Amino acid sequence: MPDISTQLSQFFKAHLPITQFMEMDVESYDGQTLILHAPLPPNINDKQTAFGGSLYNASVMACWGMLYLKTLEAGIKCNQVVTKGTIEYKAPVQGDIRAIRQAPGPGELEKLLTTFKLKGRARLTLTSSIECSGKKAVAFEGSYAILKE
Amino acid sequence: MPDISTQLSQFFKAHLPITQFMEMDVESYDGQTLILHAPLPPNINDKQTAFGGSLYNASVMACWGMLYLKTLEAGIKCNQVVTKGTIEYKAPVQGDIRAIRQAPGPGELEKLLTTFKLKGRARLTLTSSIECSGKKAVAFEGSYAILKE
Repeated sequence: MPDISTQLSQFFKAHLPITQFMEMDVESYDGQTLILHAPLPPNINDKQTAFGGSLYNASVMACWGMLYLKTLEAGIKCNQVVTKGTIEYKAPVQGDIRAIRQAPGPGELEKLLTTFKLKGRARLTLTSSIECSGKKAVAFEGSYAILKE
Repeated sequence: MPDISTQLSQFFKAHLPITQFMEMDVESYDGQTLILHAPLPPNINDKQTAFGGSLYNASVMACWGMLYLKTLEAGIKCNQVVTKGTIEYKAPVQGDIRAIRQAPGPGELEKLLTTFKLKGRARLTLTSSIECSGKKAVAFEGSYAILKE
């Protein structure tokens, strides 16, 4: 079976043209950790570091992507949307962007799926981060909702 | 004298390739209100509405752009960075993106410039919004710093 994360790559290609300009793609997914990668050149700013908007896009989609993969794995079809995002820029990102998101804990995921099955909608807060030279450069927190199609 | 906002357009073109993919540009600036515009097609998502990441980029740059223009008008040369951004998605944006930012009040601007002249750095919180069909669809708040070059 091909890695399920290829479906996330295909989603980006099919539906989000800006991710293609950013050259943003899944670097790795092992069921537990999702890493989205985007090279610096299309995402550069005037300081020759990563543009804050690109850092946001990678961060928001690392969480979104994790939710996409976890609902896929659970066999759930849903629309998913982001309702709020907060990003803190702690240090410049001086190279490629790697946005990292850990899977929600089993309890958290089960609660989400149970609520969705009961009510046709459920909410979840997720965080992701981007590191540079071994330090956290970006901290992101997003509120997401999944809704019956 | 050409409209000072052409310098913001030129900054986008020279330094932020992603803004060119987004086709994001100054729609209008009258000294009091800055509107950044980006058409839907390059910024579209799977729901045929504006992608949340593009809405963030337009919002964060409407505030950034206002700060850029106000420091230009004051004859100040500085680096300016965003340190934090919070965006709320209240409703889908079903057409072109128009991110709107009002100028800071004269007192707020004077305080910023005085602090900058004294300390070589100053901070400011700015908000912007995006409307769709006459209602606020996106509310953004960002923390910005200006720093001596």
